[in-house]
Amino acid sequence: MSNKTFIPQTTPYHWEDIPVLAYKETGTHFSKITRQVLFEGGEKIGCQLRYFEVEPGGHSTLEKHDHVHNVMILRGKGEAFVGSEVRAVSAFDLVYIPSMTWHQFRANAGETLGFLCLVNCERDRPILPTAEDLAALQAHARVAGFIRV
Amino acid sequence: MSNKTFIPQTTPYHWEDIPVLAYKETGTHFSKITRQVLFEGGEKIGCQLRYFEVEPGGHSTLEKHDHVHNVMILRGKGEAFVGSEVRAVSAFDLVYIPSMTWHQFRANAGETLGFLCLVNCERDRPILPTAEDLAALQAHARVAGFIRV
Repeated sequence: MSNKTFIPQTTPYHWEDIPVLAYKETGTHFSKITRQVLFEGGEKIGCQLRYFEVEPGGHSTLEKHDHVHNVMILRGKGEAFVGSEVRAVSAFDLVYIPSMTWHQFRANAGETLGFLCLVNCERDRPILPTAEDLAALQAHARVAGFIRV
Repeated sequence: MSNKTFIPQTTPYHWEDIPVLAYKETGTHFSKITRQVLFEGGEKIGCQLRYFEVEPGGHSTLEKHDHVHNVMILRGKGEAFVGSEVRAVSAFDLVYIPSMTWHQFRANAGETLGFLCLVNCERDRPILPTAEDLAALQAHARVAGFIRV
């Protein structure tokens, strides 16, 4: 995106000249999710603000990484898994995802789930769960029923 | 605020255990505006996310600084002045405020104006306009009619 000063919302959850992108370039460990980069960040500000939107039934990747996420739900309802907890989330709730903590968002409440996600511009690549990681996660019944890979 | 994982919105535009703060500690160059720090930032993420809310008739400080702002309007309507332009803004519009650029938000549309503002955790102090700065700003009729000091 450019560094235009004013970037109006043109239609709900779409912004002028901000393209709707693939969630990730490759992979099959996510479903029905798109990405828009609202603010790229750069020399004078070290973070990037993205808007992710998950269609009903979709989910983000189950992953962890050294960098942290600051999330604000912007639209709809769903559930989020962070660490060992699954919690219902809805518009304007906040979710802090600590470093090296498994997390996943699901639009599992019959609604589109949209959320802002703030990250450092410079960050490590996400780690996907191994079979051993999954076995450990699945030891918790609530988590086992929630996660999608 | 803590680093709690889940921070629900408790009532509209208020969040669990996040206090509503004075906009700034001192000064009279703003009006009817509050601040909530949604994410403090810290060791693993270099930015802070704040929510500012301006009552109808209120305004933020007319100021500039080296650091930049990434703003998303979250609630209501108003107008924003950035650089040399005054523009109507409403919920979910984005505003990028470049370095060393005069800016001010006003809730001048009869509605409460709430906005997210992303900044670096480490940042310089804002600069207020001198009499000479104000004279230069007031050379533009649209700007002269908008700014409040």
